[in-house]
Amino acid sequence: MNNQSQIAAAAAKDPENFALANCLRALAIDAVNTANSGHPGAPMGMADAATMLFRKHLKFDASAPDWPDRDRFILSNGHASMLLYGLLHLTGYADMTLDQIRNFRQWGSITAGHPEWGHAKGVETTTGPLGQGLATAVGMALAERALAAEFPDLVDHRTWVMHGDGCLQEGIGQEAISLAGHLGLGKLNLLYDDNDITIDGPTSISFSEDIPARLKACGWHVITCDGHDAKALDAAMTAAKAETKRPSLIAMKTTIGFGSPNRAGTAKAHGAPLGEEEGALAKANLGWDSTPFEIPTQLAANWHAIGTRGTDARIAWEAKLAASEHSESFTARVAGHLPETYERAVAMARACLFEKPQTVATRKASQIALEHLTEAIPAMIGGSADLTGSNLTRVPAVDGQFTAENPGRYIGYGVREFGMAAAMNGLALHGGLKPYGGTFLVFSDYARNAIRLASLMGLGVTYVMTHDSIGLGEDGPTHQPVEHLASLRAIPNLNVFRPADAIETLEAWDIAVRSEGTPSLLALSRQDVPQLRQAGSENLTRCGAYIIREFGKERDITLLATGTEVSLAVEAAEILQAEGYASAVVSMPCWELFDAQPETYREEVLGSAPRIAVEAASAFGWTRYVDREADVIGMPGFGASAPAERLYAEFGITTEAIVARAKTVIAK
Amino acid sequence: MNNQSQIAAAAAKDPENFALANCLRALAIDAVNTANSGHPGAPMGMADAATMLFRKHLKFDASAPDWPDRDRFILSNGHASMLLYGLLHLTGYADMTLDQIRNFRQWGSITAGHPEWGHAKGVETTTGPLGQGLATAVGMALAERALAAEFPDLVDHRTWVMHGDGCLQEGIGQEAISLAGHLGLGKLNLLYDDNDITIDGPTSISFSEDIPARLKACGWHVITCDGHDAKALDAAMTAAKAETKRPSLIAMKTTIGFGSPNRAGTAKAHGAPLGEEEGALAKANLGWDSTPFEIPTQLAANWHAIGTRGTDARIAWEAKLAASEHSESFTARVAGHLPETYERAVAMARACLFEKPQTVATRKASQIALEHLTEAIPAMIGGSADLTGSNLTRVPAVDGQFTAENPGRYIGYGVREFGMAAAMNGLALHGGLKPYGGTFLVFSDYARNAIRLASLMGLGVTYVMTHDSIGLGEDGPTHQPVEHLASLRAIPNLNVFRPADAIETLEAWDIAVRSEGTPSLLALSRQDVPQLRQAGSENLTRCGAYIIREFGKERDITLLATGTEVSLAVEAAEILQAEGYASAVVSMPCWELFDAQPETYREEVLGSAPRIAVEAASAFGWTRYVDREADVIGMPGFGASAPAERLYAEFGITTEAIVARAKTVIAK
Repeated sequence: MNNQSQIAAAAAKDPENFALANCLRALAIDAVNTANSGHPGAPMGMADAATMLFRKHLKFDASAPDWPDRDRFILSNGHASMLLYGLLHLTGYADMTLDQIRNFRQWGSITAGHPEWGHAKGVETTTGPLGQGLATAVGMALAERALAAEFPDLVDHRTWVMHGDGCLQEGIGQEAISLAGHLGLGKLNLLYDDNDITIDGPTSISFSEDIPARLKACGWHVITCDGHDAKALDAAMTAAKAETKRPSLIAMKTTIGFGSPNRAGTAKAHGAPLGEEEGALAKANLGWDSTPFEIPTQLAANWHAIGTRGTDARIAWEAKLAASEHSESFTARVAGHLPETYERAVAMARACLFEKPQTVATRKASQIALEHLTEAIPAMIGGSADLTGSNLTRVPAVDGQFTAENPGRYIGYGVREFGMAAAMNGLALHGGLKPYGGTFLVFSDYARNAIRLASLMGLGVTYVMTHDSIGLGEDGPTHQPVEHLASLRAIPNLNVFRPADAIETLEAWDIAVRSEGTPSLLALSRQDVPQLRQAGSENLTRCGAYIIREFGKERDITLLATGTEVSLAVEAAEILQAEGYASAVVSMPCWELFDAQPETYREEVLGSAPRIAVEAASAFGWTRYVDREADVIGMPGFGASAPAERLYAEFGITTEAIVARAKTVIAK
Repeated sequence: MNNQSQIAAAAAKDPENFALANCLRALAIDAVNTANSGHPGAPMGMADAATMLFRKHLKFDASAPDWPDRDRFILSNGHASMLLYGLLHLTGYADMTLDQIRNFRQWGSITAGHPEWGHAKGVETTTGPLGQGLATAVGMALAERALAAEFPDLVDHRTWVMHGDGCLQEGIGQEAISLAGHLGLGKLNLLYDDNDITIDGPTSISFSEDIPARLKACGWHVITCDGHDAKALDAAMTAAKAETKRPSLIAMKTTIGFGSPNRAGTAKAHGAPLGEEEGALAKANLGWDSTPFEIPTQLAANWHAIGTRGTDARIAWEAKLAASEHSESFTARVAGHLPETYERAVAMARACLFEKPQTVATRKASQIALEHLTEAIPAMIGGSADLTGSNLTRVPAVDGQFTAENPGRYIGYGVREFGMAAAMNGLALHGGLKPYGGTFLVFSDYARNAIRLASLMGLGVTYVMTHDSIGLGEDGPTHQPVEHLASLRAIPNLNVFRPADAIETLEAWDIAVRSEGTPSLLALSRQDVPQLRQAGSENLTRCGAYIIREFGKERDITLLATGTEVSLAVEAAEILQAEGYASAVVSMPCWELFDAQPETYREEVLGSAPRIAVEAASAFGWTRYVDREADVIGMPGFGASAPAERLYAEFGITTEAIVARAKTVIAK
């Protein structure tokens, strides 16, 4: 079908939908042209479907963007951001003014190149890195299912995702699809912008799957339709809502850059402005004769009416909430408040450890902490990427396996680290839940960009990353983290904890569950460590680093260490004391928190004596605290396969090595 | 079917295959028990299939492990390493002695917990991180196809992969499957160990796909069979070999821990030793009555005969090679030698830049370098994860799109960064090709664990990672690398280059294509930079860092910088000179190479004056060269969406800021 007849067909099918969609197309053309940067093609191609979704199917109220029972709408192909901004503006989200649209992609605007959560209301998650919007949406659908079971009178909404080919090519897309199909997330609906184009050209260059068949194989309900036929879209969305046992895919055949006479259906429409001339031709083609950024009055009014379509329902829901027996608990949960009993629970957990000190691996200490915390905090929802018995993430209060019929508090994510981390973002973004999930620290690599997005958004998620060094032993270098602590510490706004014992592990957990604007990553050991802390009610981990032992008054040396190496440093300090040297051992469970302390505190902890550091990892970054990397007793490169004790000895991470290095440094 | 009858059925179908397979099972039981660590279940379950593969189908010669035209055998579920070690030992690979088997997972042995490339012959790639063996195998199959087109008389072999559920749950598995199906890699065969078990328990916890249907949807030829029925396996492998247009999946229904009376078919067989008692019971069950590590003489002889099954074919191939018109060129290619014309080509490229200096983005400079290099080096094979026009990775000599019919030198990897990086590992491991591939630097996150494996193996692959800072502008923080340089520099044995201009970019490429034991990552700009270097024949980038400008004799300050910020530092130094301050500007395109220089050189370059650093990225790690992170003019956190110039100004990465900081430091 050529351009003209395709346009005529779309207009004839549903003139109202077509006219409303043209508002989105025109805004996308104008904003991208004005910014001279952006992606007009996808908004123009998906406008008809987005219009139908907002017009008739999405449950929302533009005047109450935070309504907890709203449907979630995720634009997984985030480069199509002008579609979302256009929808928010036209439906009347208060912050999405025309000025913001005019300042698309400019400094200080809320209309970033890719949708950024926390900038504009109605942006449910940050998208752009492909595939992740889809996987994050799975987390939102999981959250809905979990909360609907807990608050059946108050939670009943859907998660709608728009995405393109890129989200399906990325492996994480399949992880999300597979998990959603397995769990039968019937309220998750994908709208697939099947336009046959990626950046490099036609999808035929690199992609020739039968997508409906792939999704059917993963347990999905699949519908195909013409993405410019409003009636077909309406029917498809109705069918998707009617299916309750399986997630639904609506594969919409679309034309990228729909309306543009010379670029529609080509990769040229994807990532470059149409420009004045082609923009004008496209508008003429679509029968659009307003000035740039101008929306005809009647269409603007009709769009505004769409924005308030859900107001009555929202008001009714609020009345239901007010009358509900769950009113208080639901509101507290959505607000992210910890239960009043929490303080007592964490104090109790601490008291137990002081009463009966634990010489255990810090992963085991984490399990002990979780036993107390998950009991006290109903919002906590756990899981692991198929390493439950290793991560020790499953404890009695969250023991129920999450299934569609019976959404327990433990999610079997399968061998899908990236999908897990992105789903955790969705669980956190949804509100009402505090997700944590486990894998081996080395496989933080697989999940890395989702951890980055959690940090960028500032979500209170917690990663339980065990087997944190060569201490894991025989599995060898593919499984032994070396550079991971450094590479994670380099991510802005991520608290990386490497606790030294059971107390620090509990303290790290305590900080993690309270954290609202920063995700937490716990790097935990496979091997046992003694409990170094024996008393005291203060959470010292909150300072990031502190003097855990002091031998003598005027320090000859300061020994910095983290995690399993703190006890080695303490042993070394004892030997040094016997040989007449005064020292302090500083445990540094969280660099980020330490660096946020007042300078006086930091100076006091670090001292003025020479310093060396001990950490069974790359020395990279430690020069923040020591003079040179040679002063770090760590890993010079990758690990090896052997029992852990042998590895520590062979790589020279021993008490003797610490003592020797300390003496060399003192002697200088 | 219960244990006993299943064993009886397997034995009845093909007694010889069953008996040979029991050798593998017994060795796995014994080695894992002796190490008291490892995974017996998968080797026991896959032994029948592996035996049939080696007995009748795999083209190999244990006496010539490096035979270039051998079939490649990849154990993607690397935790089943004892299966591979058993096969290599039994078929007579010289280095895989019984002592090595006895020292499974011990310090200094070649029998690491997961197969490590370069340790034992016959281990074609390092595996363990799930899904990557499969994706690496796709790279090997790509290499075979490319070389078969170039050397049709000398290259004709297959790539066989064994894998379990984990490799299919990982997203990268789907990326590999999708790409292989799209490209019709008919000589790629998967043997899927479909045993219904993952670490956390039955796959039904998290995985319920119809795998045959998923792979058919991706264009695969699919066969299902009983994985303990040798005749069915034989027929399936024969059918897989007969299919030439599509890759083949053989989905083998197997029992994990086959033979173990109390653990077969359960997660308990997966990752823990059977122990003495259960091991003995399993052996009795299988009718195995030898002592630990003992192989009955006749079976040992039969296995050895399998190991030399391919000797005649290999000798015939060598004769063909000797007689071939391609003999010399093929041998040189496989050895990884650069053509003699190469030196001239790189000198010419340099001369062109000096004659006509280029003010271009370093990604553009990379394209210019590639034009020369790909012309001179036929082994280079390029590609991009759907960002060709942004990465500028496609140049005339590699312009041919890779298809099954016509394997050109440019691979459209699609939006699959992780799959691309793993496939590049396979291309490099295969021999005969030098792969490079492009994406945005920020998406190195997606590919990260494959980059790690390349570093661990020491492969000569090159990553072309463009849009290396906030300089990419409007796309915003999801697309702006901040922590990526630091996090990549933390990976051992990876050369991270951030060239300052067209000459350094060429030099980095020159080092990359010569590098045999270290992968190279080029972080390249979107925005233009002036060409700072105007003359000289020496590759200064090889030193990692060097004085690019010196103003005055006795330095008051040293300005360290990389990439696009070097020209800013030069401008700042000029201003400082005008104000009476002497300085040196040090360009540091590659920290790793600089740190490998002699101390005298390093001291000379860094000087004794105070130092500050400039890099539009996280300051993390820079304290290796400067006193404190406050002396780094960099990024304090994530970026933002706006035009690049605005971002540089807002984040204070400007000439003025450098001058001001320099003066503050000098004044101290």
